[in-house]
Formats: sequence, structure tokens, C-alpha cells
Amino acid sequence: MEGCDSMSDEIKQLPKLWTGDHYNEGIGRDDIFDKLREECGVFGVFNVPNACSLGYYGLHALQHRGEESAGMATVESATGKFSYHRNMGLVKEVFDQATLECLPGDRVIGHVRYSTAGESRLANAQPLLFKYRDGDLGVATNGNIVNAPSIRKELESQGSIFQTTSDTEVIAHLIARSNKDFVSAAKDALQRIIGGFAFLIMTNDKLLVASDPHGLRPLVMGRMGDGYVFASETCALDTVGAIYERDVQPGELLILDKDGLRVDRFERLERRATCAMEYIYFARPDSDINGINLHSARKRMGRQLALEAFIDADIVTGVPDSSISAAIGYAEQTGIPYELGLIKNKYTGRTFIQPSQELREKGVKMKLSAVRKVVEGKRVIMIDDSIVRGTTSLRIVNLLREAGATEVHVYITSPPFKNPCYYGINTPDRKELIASQKSVEEIRLAINADSLYFLSNEGFIEAVGGNDGKFNRGMCMACFDNDYPTPVDPNSEKSCSC
Amino acid sequence: MEGCDSMSDEIKQLPKLWTGDHYNEGIGRDDIFDKLREECGVFGVFNVPNACSLGYYGLHALQHRGEESAGMATVESATGKFSYHRNMGLVKEVFDQATLECLPGDRVIGHVRYSTAGESRLANAQPLLFKYRDGDLGVATNGNIVNAPSIRKELESQGSIFQTTSDTEVIAHLIARSNKDFVSAAKDALQRIIGGFAFLIMTNDKLLVASDPHGLRPLVMGRMGDGYVFASETCALDTVGAIYERDVQPGELLILDKDGLRVDRFERLERRATCAMEYIYFARPDSDINGINLHSARKRMGRQLALEAFIDADIVTGVPDSSISAAIGYAEQTGIPYELGLIKNKYTGRTFIQPSQELREKGVKMKLSAVRKVVEGKRVIMIDDSIVRGTTSLRIVNLLREAGATEVHVYITSPPFKNPCYYGINTPDRKELIASQKSVEEIRLAINADSLYFLSNEGFIEAVGGNDGKFNRGMCMACFDNDYPTPVDPNSEKSCSC
Amino acid sequence: MEGCDSMSDEIKQLPKLWTGDHYNEGIGRDDIFDKLREECGVFGVFNVPNACSLGYYGLHALQHRGEESAGMATVESATGKFSYHRNMGLVKEVFDQATLECLPGDRVIGHVRYSTAGESRLANAQPLLFKYRDGDLGVATNGNIVNAPSIRKELESQGSIFQTTSDTEVIAHLIARSNKDFVSAAKDALQRIIGGFAFLIMTNDKLLVASDPHGLRPLVMGRMGDGYVFASETCALDTVGAIYERDVQPGELLILDKDGLRVDRFERLERRATCAMEYIYFARPDSDINGINLHSARKRMGRQLALEAFIDADIVTGVPDSSISAAIGYAEQTGIPYELGLIKNKYTGRTFIQPSQELREKGVKMKLSAVRKVVEGKRVIMIDDSIVRGTTSLRIVNLLREAGATEVHVYITSPPFKNPCYYGINTPDRKELIASQKSVEEIRLAINADSLYFLSNEGFIEAVGGNDGKFNRGMCMACFDNDYPTPVDPNSEKSCSC
Amino acid sequence: MEGCDSMSDEIKQLPKLWTGDHYNEGIGRDDIFDKLREECGVFGVFNVPNACSLGYYGLHALQHRGEESAGMATVESATGKFSYHRNMGLVKEVFDQATLECLPGDRVIGHVRYSTAGESRLANAQPLLFKYRDGDLGVATNGNIVNAPSIRKELESQGSIFQTTSDTEVIAHLIARSNKDFVSAAKDALQRIIGGFAFLIMTNDKLLVASDPHGLRPLVMGRMGDGYVFASETCALDTVGAIYERDVQPGELLILDKDGLRVDRFERLERRATCAMEYIYFARPDSDINGINLHSARKRMGRQLALEAFIDADIVTGVPDSSISAAIGYAEQTGIPYELGLIKNKYTGRTFIQPSQELREKGVKMKLSAVRKVVEGKRVIMIDDSIVRGTTSLRIVNLLREAGATEVHVYITSPPFKNPCYYGINTPDRKELIASQKSVEEIRLAINADSLYFLSNEGFIEAVGGNDGKFNRGMCMACFDNDYPTPVDPNSEKSCSC
Repeated sequence: MEGCDSMSDEIKQLPKLWTGDHYNEGIGRDDIFDKLREECGVFGVFNVPNACSLGYYGLHALQHRGEESAGMATVESATGKFSYHRNMGLVKEVFDQATLECLPGDRVIGHVRYSTAGESRLANAQPLLFKYRDGDLGVATNGNIVNAPSIRKELESQGSIFQTTSDTEVIAHLIARSNKDFVSAAKDALQRIIGGFAFLIMTNDKLLVASDPHGLRPLVMGRMGDGYVFASETCALDTVGAIYERDVQPGELLILDKDGLRVDRFERLERRATCAMEYIYFARPDSDINGINLHSARKRMGRQLALEAFIDADIVTGVPDSSISAAIGYAEQTGIPYELGLIKNKYTGRTFIQPSQELREKGVKMKLSAVRKVVEGKRVIMIDDSIVRGTTSLRIVNLLREAGATEVHVYITSPPFKNPCYYGINTPDRKELIASQKSVEEIRLAINADSLYFLSNEGFIEAVGGNDGKFNRGMCMACFDNDYPTPVDPNSEKSCSC
Repeated sequence: MEGCDSMSDEIKQLPKLWTGDHYNEGIGRDDIFDKLREECGVFGVFNVPNACSLGYYGLHALQHRGEESAGMATVESATGKFSYHRNMGLVKEVFDQATLECLPGDRVIGHVRYSTAGESRLANAQPLLFKYRDGDLGVATNGNIVNAPSIRKELESQGSIFQTTSDTEVIAHLIARSNKDFVSAAKDALQRIIGGFAFLIMTNDKLLVASDPHGLRPLVMGRMGDGYVFASETCALDTVGAIYERDVQPGELLILDKDGLRVDRFERLERRATCAMEYIYFARPDSDINGINLHSARKRMGRQLALEAFIDADIVTGVPDSSISAAIGYAEQTGIPYELGLIKNKYTGRTFIQPSQELREKGVKMKLSAVRKVVEGKRVIMIDDSIVRGTTSLRIVNLLREAGATEVHVYITSPPFKNPCYYGINTPDRKELIASQKSVEEIRLAINADSLYFLSNEGFIEAVGGNDGKFNRGMCMACFDNDYPTPVDPNSEKSCSC
Repeated sequence: MEGCDSMSDEIKQLPKLWTGDHYNEGIGRDDIFDKLREECGVFGVFNVPNACSLGYYGLHALQHRGEESAGMATVESATGKFSYHRNMGLVKEVFDQATLECLPGDRVIGHVRYSTAGESRLANAQPLLFKYRDGDLGVATNGNIVNAPSIRKELESQGSIFQTTSDTEVIAHLIARSNKDFVSAAKDALQRIIGGFAFLIMTNDKLLVASDPHGLRPLVMGRMGDGYVFASETCALDTVGAIYERDVQPGELLILDKDGLRVDRFERLERRATCAMEYIYFARPDSDINGINLHSARKRMGRQLALEAFIDADIVTGVPDSSISAAIGYAEQTGIPYELGLIKNKYTGRTFIQPSQELREKGVKMKLSAVRKVVEGKRVIMIDDSIVRGTTSLRIVNLLREAGATEVHVYITSPPFKNPCYYGINTPDRKELIASQKSVEEIRLAINADSLYFLSNEGFIEAVGGNDGKFNRGMCMACFDNDYPTPVDPNSEKSCSC
Repeated sequence: MEGCDSMSDEIKQLPKLWTGDHYNEGIGRDDIFDKLREECGVFGVFNVPNACSLGYYGLHALQHRGEESAGMATVESATGKFSYHRNMGLVKEVFDQATLECLPGDRVIGHVRYSTAGESRLANAQPLLFKYRDGDLGVATNGNIVNAPSIRKELESQGSIFQTTSDTEVIAHLIARSNKDFVSAAKDALQRIIGGFAFLIMTNDKLLVASDPHGLRPLVMGRMGDGYVFASETCALDTVGAIYERDVQPGELLILDKDGLRVDRFERLERRATCAMEYIYFARPDSDINGINLHSARKRMGRQLALEAFIDADIVTGVPDSSISAAIGYAEQTGIPYELGLIKNKYTGRTFIQPSQELREKGVKMKLSAVRKVVEGKRVIMIDDSIVRGTTSLRIVNLLREAGATEVHVYITSPPFKNPCYYGINTPDRKELIASQKSVEEIRLAINADSLYFLSNEGFIEAVGGNDGKFNRGMCMACFDNDYPTPVDPNSEKSCSC
């Protein structure tokens, strides 16, 4: 992770605007991020009374997947009545007791999201809600539709109007324009779109759950009494007390209605290709993906690093929060003690006033600090999850040096990040990806490290799979190896549609 | 006016929900209103730098036409770039300095609105914004489209999806689905819709201004330097320092773009039929409609009442704020002194805690009080603008009696309100309109008055026209005489589409 | 009233700071006011269950006497337990249902206040609460203690510390330092202080109510079942349904405890001297002071103006809101029609963004507008209540002229305001009082009026007293005639201690 | 730490009240806490331009020492002018850019605090500000004055009034009542008070810094250019870029004015007795106290536990956040792998809606979850810092068991907590301290652990001192061994005066 620059992800004017529905294409923020960001998390409940309460806690558990807006739509199965509420802000800011009381029903679809550049728009907050021929339609998505621009163009040329810049709106149009019954229309629509996505689609009488044909974005199913719970990560199932049942399979379409659950497919499973960055950085360490616990996987990445490239040093430290597990693994493997060389201030958040340039030069450091007593006079191994532009890594290395570290060795728990993502990760242009432009030695110089090592592709796969040997490839590692599981248009917009 | 019951138009939970985008069809509020409500106000600027500042003050001047949400969309003519912001709340709550700074441009369309029953929805806040084939489309409307439900049904059957419950979305679909150029498409769309409406439609390069073929809803044009200002009422022109030029004519379509203003028509003028209630109650007393100042018109209504039905009494009082002008006119005509027998607490507003039933019984009176010293032992003539259900009138009469009035004579500055409005006024069902169900004598008994008099139709027309004699009919008085200027579907939803 | 400049009484940064307890002596605001301001209102309840609910509505009725902070302290008589809440803001902003539920008790003292220059301090918000030898002490005051600075100095020299800049803290120190029982200590303290004040003092077992020896500030008593209600104005009694009993008399000390009400005096009544400006401007028109209704008194002031100085004109208009009653009186007396020549925007308030200088020059007018249709081509008589610095009058006269008035005659319902107030009215220095520096003719020129007339002292007294003849002097008119009812120190701070 | 119950430290109504100054003695919260809480943090700056900016970041770094209110007072040394702002809330909520701009000066004293039972009072928020004979006086304290109640009683009997329930007000009275010069008066006052405290006292021309005679509460001094920075912990120095110079010594009085820094004493150093809980739990792991880094000290506590009581198990886990360091130390010493068996949701905070009892029973778990994949089928060593009532420990043990742990061994990094603190830690009554009432075996049963071990007193001292051997006793361990460094009144109120 490139955590230090996340300092910059606070835009001070933002909170003011957040209370409304604001749209100004000119506010770009790409340039101040040096951080990969998961774009969304989804959560759904079918057939559990007071579903919105579960939604509240479930979305809260997925908050790390999207801090900028939150929303829920509920349906009362007895009446088919829709209710919804969404807003900019954290789950706990968007919902309060009074709001939850306005969301009756035993079905819910919920969503948390980051906004992409220029679009801190309430209108884009999900679930998106539509009125169409057959009634109400709610959609919550995690991921990105690669061919959305061309479908959108086609729809516009046929007279469609769009109220959001979200590609998710495309799927609603495709369904509404079909002459078939709802489920068939949805299958047709899912077949037309290409990309990586997890969909929750709710109508007055049905809930549809779908994962893209490669399973790029995680999506799991749990049971709760007679009901079902769906979530981007298992941690949300644990939080609400649901029992994990299985991961939703690539190309699957689950249909839930008064007759219960029916498992269908809109596409045969091709190659499974779960996003590698979910294992490395995005998902919470207490979540499991495809049955693999992420804290354990990350510890194995740290151990694997030690096996591939041991270096003698006094202490091992991890960049918080994402690289703590890996750092502990490295320490366990090598016997070099794990120490708290870097610490994050947990109170920093959206409304925090960032230090001025002058104060920064004076040494005012907020989110992340190096602990002098721990690192002074020490040779430090610093474990991090990835390097995007390199600016954040440089900043952290320098923090450690200013605090007295005599050597700083940077060990990265993933291969070099060279290629942009088209499936829902907010990545900069290829030319800004330092690993795409420079050799490892050049990067080492750029980040002022004494040594730099990236985990090998094979070592990474081995570490994710763990010692049970059962895990074969099954990952999208296009950002490392340029092998995209779907056709992509290099000229198209990257990032996500949710 | 039935002001006292406006006590009830505070829904305490609302403010909480207002920060977000909430939708729950179940929250009806019709039953607690006994008050006619104008549904919207619109304001537009073309070719004035920093247009959103004018928009802020202009919408503020129109605040009485809609207190529940406010919004503005701006365009920079040089680039065609759209920006917008909208939210639930008063103009001064929705916009602050930082928000205005995010709305660059020399063109603006703005809107204030009340929400109709069950729809305190941010999504319905206007201007509505769409993306379509040719770029961005913003629409702000005051009024109602009578045939929107059938058009909407037709559009949905062709696969259109709707994100709002606002009929205004219909016009955007009609434009987007046309194969013609934008202005022709807009004319076609305006011809298809039936009702009473004032439209401001803005694209990346044009501003369109239109009034329905009968001019049911007011809309005026002013000049400001080289630019133009449009508003529902002249008071907004005065506030921003624009010079009134003329009322937009029924059936007119004004097209403003880089070539300046072009006057066109989408429909020939049929019978002009400006909403009578604008003269009686909705518009601000300092506004002019069709050249008639409303304070003066309302004073003439009071004088006319005196001419038609003089009664001896000790004092005349008006129900604030709307009937003060008429009460003064009645007093001037008769010589009976005008006194402040009823007073409104100006600080009461949305967030105010309403007295519990127990406190009401104890005599806790908020918004409106009768002034004992003024009315005690007096025969009081109470002037009001209309009677809807009668409950509010009863309450005010009783306030006066409890304060010691020996007689209370109720004089209404309009004919009996018997028929619902289909053109943008929020009216209850016909069976709840007391004048539709009861005779004048029965109403008198129901409101506990010593006498009751409604202005005659002819007297009302005479009073509006004033002594210049030039004013012929020109009003929609369907609520009094059942003569609707357009076809209406008695089964359709009433009220407004904005 | 000099209403137009009240435009300036919005300080845009204020709302931000209002959520906390802020103190910066440097923020002066005197220079931007051209308006006399009442400083405070008080409200008390003894022996009525759920007293804080009455307090809420009662303070709300007194909101015009202080818009910047509000507070209540309650006592449960059974236990003597104190609770309190106070904050910057309007009554409806400071209190909500949850807050009221935290204020149990059958006794309450409450307060609304304006802050004086430089002191938008939560710490100064009343009631002030203290812990002293005998328990809790709460104080709410309206008025000013002339000799507070010298008492404060003496107390500080004895080691007292002060947490507020409010002179009200003085009375608590005096009581706490006495060796006598509480009531005797309070009488001693009231005897030591000089000025104009209405006090509500509450301990764990008593409520004390006192009015200064001249009755400068109004204070009334009402009954409610077995309980008592006290308020600055009768309108608050009416609002909560209490029955007016009598005005608290100058020098009276009412003691309420488990034995009920006991009437005592701390000072014999000298000359009664109720503040004249209460009659002219401060109190609500539906209130009575010393049995005189203020709407009626103000109408008589308008009639008296007409008797003293008739001038022929086309219309009479009043500066809203305070001079409407007088304008109607003038119109009734002369037969010149009363018209709505000036209108105030009721939505303008604290958080409103004020027009920039550039926009003002463009003609953007907020709070007050002249109605062109009404005044164009007319000779206008403009009734106002007072002229302080003259700048506001000039602005309003110019508004009328720009709207086409051919002549503007300014008639003031009070004598020239020449001398500062030391008893709780926020007045500028004598040298800024235009009537203290200039002749009537010079003022006329300064405010650009065609003629200017101030009501005579005798005419004013006559008008207040009305035609019942029973009202003799009984007013403090020091601001007009320099005859202060108490010793004053011309070097001391003016304005108020609440 | 007893982290899980910190779930309960959210009181849902609180946020509403926080915007004002509320006081209700009846709202107790003791019963829902099972957590020791540091009461305050202080931060001061002398002679650094724009001192309030440093204050903002410095207080933010100390936020863990007090999350309920924050405040700063500044002085401009050139003029002696005071400014201040304080409110309920986090530092980032209390201050924004506009507020900071209202706090000019090169000197600041700042404070963060928790409120004790029943006193979520803005009035108690520090710094406390007073006006006294010689001008302004600001006081910020961390700690508790044991004999404050008796001094307060004495002061009240002499006529003093108190506006807060904070004992800190006592010191201001003592200073104000003295006849000596300010510094001598302050020394006298400091000599009279007994307890554990760190004081920052600021007047118009001086800053005083003092630590109690036993150095119970930490306080450090740093340099920044020509200026000085004082803070409860070194992490705040690091955050603002100040260079640590030394700890303020017990009994020291530092006087800073235009002549710079003068070191004085108000009391000779007796036995040094720094609060043991600072080492164990309160201070941030990246802070140093008396030159000892807390992460390192806590790791040594973990190692010491392993030395004293090794048990075979599959994994070691720490209760986040406070026991992570110790768990790593235990793992390093034993070779048993450290795993992330428990995880805390970082987004949970004050405004979070707590699960209802029904939802809790359904298994909805917020703040803390056990990671099934990590603990299932494992023998778990769970490291925690202390056990207060035992209820939280029971809850966490059960979380681990429900997640499949086959054995749960609880290891505590401190001796049994048996005695209440009188020096600024919010502890329950002795009879609620489980270790005061039960044997270790009884506690083990009560918390459902397979084994339970508390660090020995000697081992704890050894671990804090580390391997440098220089650290002798120097701690107050009264909560473990009942040996209080000052006289205490067992009947007096416990907890803190800040």
C-alpha cells in the first residue's frame, strides 16, 4: 500500500458539498492519489425481517471498500413496496435510527462506494433506482463494465437518457428495453456486458445475484435462518451473524423470489480469474476469498518474501494497516523481530485539516509517523503491498531515515504493478505506473531505498494458494503480467462503473 | 388563506432525512394539510457573468413558491460545461459560498419546489439533469402535465426507465427520442404535452423558455445589461436588479444561444387563462402578473367585498400574511378600522417542535395568535383568501372568540373553491373541498362564523382587472367554475409535475 | 426602525463558530449595526409539570428580544435537582425533543439574548449557572447594571474570578459572599446594584423574581392552574395559555417556594420609568405593557403624527415590520391610503449569504424592497420608528426613489434619539447618533427626504397613554430628553449586562 | 484492555446534545463502561508563530487521551490578547479553518478530555478561562486533585462561586485570592493541592508548566526553533516536528515569559511515581515516557509473560489495539505464531447505531470480531492489558470460542487491578473490580478461560525498565499494590478533575 499519500485524499471543501447532490465535472482528484482503490462493496439480504438493520451492519463491515457514499433499497415481500435512502458519507453518517425506520422490508440491497475522478455525485450513489414498465428496479454493483461506453452510445442513439455517469445505468436500460420476461431480459443484458462485476438486482418481487464470467470481483453467499445474505466479503457475513455457505461462482445467476432460491447461469464458467489485488490489499484480513483467509495469505506472502530474498537487518516493520500481516510473516520466517516502526493515527479522517506546505516543511506529520525509539540506529526492513507511482514509498522511506534508520530495505508483497486495471480498480495511466516505466533498480533509487525486492509471480501464486496445494492459478494478474481475462479497449476509460 | 393549519406542515423527522436522497412512497402528508400550495418557482439567467449568484438571490425571492428543495444548474457558454447542485431545504440552506463557487457559468436555471404527498425526494429536486445523445440536458418546471401518465406509460412500454416520479422527466425522454434537431424536438415535445407549465430547458449551448398555450403559470422576462433573466414572478427580477420587460406569452418558445434571443411559438395562443389563485394567494404582493400588482389587486378584492356585502362591525382584521392587503382595502372602503387582531410568529419554521395534543389543549398556540386587547368585546370582520377544508377557518374563528370577539364575520376574497386543480396546485380530493360539499350557510355553521361571504365571480374578475378596464377574463377559474381550459382526466393524479 | 441595515447584522462566519464556545475580544460588530437592539428576554415557570415545554414555547414567543442564544435551567421541586441546556442559535435550533427530555422539572428559568459587540460567546449565554455554598444558583436577566464595573472591580480585588463578561455574574458573587440567608442576601445584592433589570433567580428550592426600582424593563406575571408564569412580555403568556395577572412592580421581589408566592420589596417604588423604546419598537405589537396594547399604542402614534403634521401625499407606507401599525394609524387619521410600498423577505436570516459590493451596485436587494407598481409616480409618506445613525433611513428613502416615488416624506413615531441608553439597549456612542449631532433639517438632507418630522415628546406621551387619560408619565425617555432615572457614569460601558 | 465493551461507550443521544452546553447530573454512564479511561491530554506552545496550528495537530496526536471535548486558548505575546474556542467532539470536529483563524497568537494551551459520569458538559471542557484581578487566566490540566473537595468547600464558605464541576477551577480561585504576585501565588496554590496532575497555566504575559510532586501524569518538553512545546506524550512532539528535550520533572514549575524559560520548583521531588497504566495501556505505543518507548515496553511485557508462564498453544493473538505489541512479544519469545485472531472495525465511532439486544443475540457483532479461519480448531493464547470488571474479557473469550477456538488462554500484561485510582483514571468502585473481589481461579471461571495468568509485579517492573537496568521503581502501582504515593480519602470522589 502507498498509505502515506492517502494524506492527500482529503479534499477540504468536500464535506460541505456532501449534503447535497452536486456535480461538477471539473473537480478532478486523480492527480493527488497515489493509491489503488477498491471501488465498491455490495451487500444483500433476502427473507430476513428488518433487513435494513442487517444491511446497516453489513455495509459497515464493508466500509473499507468505499468511504464516499452509502445506500440501501428495501422491499417488503408481502407488498412489493420499495423504499430507499442513500447519501454521501460513511454508513454511520448516511443512516441513523430514523432513516432505518423508513426502510421497511425483508429484502435489501446495499452499496458503499468510492467516487472516481470528478464525480463526487450523490446521483451516482448506489443502489440506483429506476421505474420501468414492470415497476421498480434497483441495482447495486461492484466492478466495471468494459464495453459500457459503446453500449451507452448505442442506447443514446436510440433516445435513451442517462441521469448518472455510472455505467451501472446501462444494465437497467438493457433490461427495460427487452421484450422478454424479466429474468430472461436480465440474462440477455448480463451476456451483453463484458468486464468484472458483482451485481445485486432487485425488483418488486425478485432479487437477482450475479458474478461476471471470470469471477473477477468477490461475492459470497451466506445463510441466516430461512434467509440468504450476500456480500462482497465474508467479514460482512461474520458481522451480521450469517453462516458462510459458498462463493458465488463465475457466470452464475441466482434468482430469489417467493419460490426461494434458484441457481442458474447466464454464461458458462470460463477461466476463473479473481482479482489478485483483493488478496494483496483490498479485502479485509479477516475475510476469506475462495476459501482462503487473507491474513493468512498475507503472512505467507511475507514468509515467501523471506524465502526468496533474505537480507540481514535489525527489525521488520509493515506499512499500516495493510502490510502488518505480511511483516509478521517475514519476521516469523527470518527471526528478525517485528517492530512497530510506523504508526498510523486512527482519528484522521475526511474532515481533518491537512497541514499547509509550510507546516509540512516544519515537520508536521499526520496520518503516518515513524517511531524514533524503535528505528533509530537500526537497519529496517519495510514491508509494503505495492508501489504505484512511487511517491508514497519515497515519503515513507524518508520518514524512517529521518527517524534514524541506518538502512531501509523495501520488500513488496506483490510483483511490480505495471498495467492498468479495467475491472473496478482506480489506477492511474500506465505512464504514471512507476513499474511500467522503470527497472527495479531505478525504482529503488527513486524511492531512496537501500534495497528493493518485489515478490515473484510464482512466489505470489504459491503464497496465495498456501500449503494446501489445491489452489491453481485462478487469479487475474493482468496488472502484473498484462494477461487480461477479457477483451479490453486500451483507449477506453479505466476504473469502475459502480 | 388557511394559514393556521400550516402548523401541521412541519414533519419533525423530515430534517434528518433531508440530508440525503430518500424515497418512501408510504409517507403521505396530504391528510395534514389544509392549505393550497403553489408547487414551484423557476428562475433563469442567460449571459450574465457569475449567473449562480443571481440565481441564489432570485430563487430566494421565489422561496414562498417552494420551501422543500432548491437547485441550480449552470453552463459556461464558452465551454458548454454543466455544473449543478441541489438539495432538500431552503435556498439559504442548500447553497453556501463554497457551493456557489462550484457553479461557474453565465447561464443558470434554478428551481424551488414543494414536494407532493409521499415524495420528499431529493431525486425529484429540480433542475433535473440528463445525459442524452447530444450532451447534457437540464430542465426546471413549474406546473403540471395533465397527460404525463399516459405519455409515461407509452415511453415505458418502449423501454424507457425513469429515475424520478416527476412528470418533468417525460419531456426529457420525448426530446431524446426524437430524430429531429434539438429545437424541433423540443417543440414537438411541448406540443404533445397538455397542462399548465413554465419550462426552462438548458443544453450545453442553448436555453429554451416556454409557457403553456394558456399561460396558466406565470413567467416573466427581464433584461440585465446584455443578458436576460426569467422568473416565475417579477419580485425576483426586482431583487436581482433586472428590468422587467414583458410576460412570456402563452404558447411562446424563446430560444437563447450564441446568436442571442429568438422568439418562436410551439402553439398558437388560444384563450389566455392565468391561474386565479396566483392573484389571490400564491404570488408575492410586490409581484406583478400580466402587469397587475398583486397588493393592489388584493386591496381591490377587499374593497369589492365591502361593496358587495357591507356589514357593520368594530374592526377589520386579515389572516396573515396573505390577507393583510385585502383587509386594508376593506377597511379603506368601509371606514371600519383595520386592526392587528391576528399575529403570526415569524420564527416558526420547519425545525420547530409542535405542541403535543396535551399542550394544545392547555392553550399553547404557536404560529398564529389572536390579540386579546385588540379583539376583546369587538365585532370582528376577518378577511381570508380561501376556504379549503374549513378546519383552519374554524380554528381561527375560535381563536378570535376565545380572545373575546363578540362576533366574527368571515369574508373571503375569492369565490368558493369547489374543484381540484390539475395545473400545479396541490389540492385535496373534491370530496374534501368543503365548498364542493356544502352550501355557504352550512359552511358558516361548520366554521362557527356569525356570517360568511364569498366574493362573487364577477366581483373577483372586476377586482383583479382593476379600474383600467383593459383586463378581460384571461384567468383560469376552474377551481371556482369548473371550466378547465384543457381536457383533464378526472381519474388522473392531480397536483403538479415539478 | 432602521430595518434596512439589519441586512448587515449577519456575520457570515458566525454560524460556524456557533456550535462551540468561542471568545475573541477582537471581533467587534458595533460598526455594522444601525439599529437599536433589545438585548434579552426572560421567561420563568413555577409549579407547572414539564415546565421546559412551556419554556420552549414561551421563549419562542420572545425570540424577537434575542436571536443569538437561548437557554433554560429547570428544577424538580421534589428533589431540588438542576438541569440545564443552552447554546448559540434560535430557540428552535438550541432545543429539540431529546434536549427537552433532559430538562425535567416543574420550574424553569429561560433566556434569549443578543450578544453585544465582540462577545458572541456561548459562555455568556444565559441562564448563568453557579455552584455556591448552598447549592446551585441560576440567573436569567434582562437589562443592565450601571454600576457593575465598579462592583466587579471590588470583587476581583477580593479574589473573585469571573468566567463571563456578563455583569449578571456580579449578582451571583454578591449573593454567595453574603453571610445572610439566601433571600436576605439577594435583597442586599439587589439594593447594591443600580440600573434597569428584570431578574429571575432560581436555587434548588426557590425562585426569585425582581424588577428594578424604576421598572425600566418590562416583566409580567401570569397564572396557569396552580402555577405561575413570568415573562418579559404578555405575548409569551398568551402563547403558552397562561392568564395575565399583573405587571411585576418596580422594586418588587417575588419569592416562590414550597410555601407558594410571597410578595416582598427590596426597594420602595420611586418614579416608574418604563423604557419608551419598548412601546415604540421592541415589544411585539400583540403584547401589552402596563396594560397598554402595543399595536394600539403604535397606531395612536401614527394618528398623533397626522394630527401634529399633516402633509398631502398619495400613499402612506410603513417600514416593516415595526412601523406597519403606525402607518395604518396615520392612514386612518388622514384618509391617505395605506399601501404596501416596502416589503421584507421573510426567509432572510442568519445563514443567508449577503450580496457582495459588486452585486449591491448591480441592484441586488435582499431583505427589503420597494414595490415599483405601488410607489411609482407617487408622493409617499414613509413611517418609521426611529433614526439612529441615519444610514438606514437614507437607504430606504433611496429605495423608494429608485422605484419611482416622486416625493418621500419621512415621519418618525418617536422624538429624536439623542442620548445613549444605559439600561439594556445596544446604542452607539452619542457622537454617532445623528439626532445628537444634527438639526432636523440637516437630518432631512442627510437622509434625502422631502420632509422629515419627529413626533413631539408630548404627543408621544399622549399617544402611548391613549385616550383613557389614566396614563401619566411613567416612562424613561432619557434617550430623547437626557433625563436618566438613575445616576449613570457617562464613561462607563453602555448597553446591557445580560 | 477490555476493548469489547467499549461497544457500549456510544450513547446515542449524546451527539444531539453535544452542540450545546448541557448539564444534567442524572445521566450516569459508569454502569455501561468496563474500561479504564485516561481522562485528559494537554498540549502547549510558547513562542511559535501561528501556535494554534501546532495545537491542532498536537491535540490530534493526543486524541486517544480524550475524545469528548477539545479546546485551545491562545495569547498574542505582543498584545497579551486572549482568544479561545472549545466544544464537545473530536479535535477535527471542534476546529475548522475558520475557527483556527480566530485564534491568533504565538502561545497556546490546549486540552482534550473524556467526561466523567454525568458530566458531558461543555462548561467543563478545558482550557478553563477566567477573568481575575490581573487579567485573563487559562488553565489546562491532566490529572486529579485529591483534596479539591475540601478546598472547594472552604472556598465556597468564603463566598466563592463555581461554574464547573471541574476541580481545576480550584487552582484559579486559589491564585486569584492570593495577595502575592502571580508566580508566588501559583506556587502557593500548587503546594496546597494534593494529587497527580500536569498543569498548563497561561496569563496575558506568562505560561506556567507544572507536574505534581510525584510525576504521576506524564508531561514532556520539546524545542521548536526558538520556542517550546509541551505535551502529555512525545507522540505529539513528533507529530508537530518538535525535538524532544526532556520530561518535566516531578515538582517542577517552568515559567515562560518575555525573558524566556526559567526553571523553578514548587516542591522538592519526593518519590517519583509515574502512573503504571500509562505504560500498560493509555499512552500511544510510539510515545516514550521517562525515556522508555511504550511499544518496546509492551513487547517486553509479552516476553516477560512468556518467561513467567509458558503454555503450549497453536497461536497467540492480542486484543486490539492496545495488546498487539505484547502479543508480538509473547510470540517472539515462545515461537508460537502471532495471528490476527481478533479484528477491530476501524470505522466504528460515536455516531454508530449499536445493535439491539435482539440483533446481538442474532450474532451481530460490531467493533470486535474473531476471525474464524484463524482461530478455528486452534488453542489460542489471548493477550490483554487488564481486567476491570471481567465482563468484556468474558465476551471476547466467548467470541473466540464461537469462532471455533478449542482452548482460550488469557494472559494479562499487568498484575490484577484491585484498587481504584485517585489520580485521573476513571475506575469503578472497588467492589466492581473483579480482582478485588475474586481469586485468579474465580476470575478464570468468570471469564470462561482455560487458563488465566497475570504478570507479576516484579515481572511488570522488570519489563517496563527493560534491559538497560537503569529504571528503578519510579511507578505508582497503587491500583495493583494499594501503595498510594499521596494521602487519599477513600470516601472522596475518585477519578479526575480535568
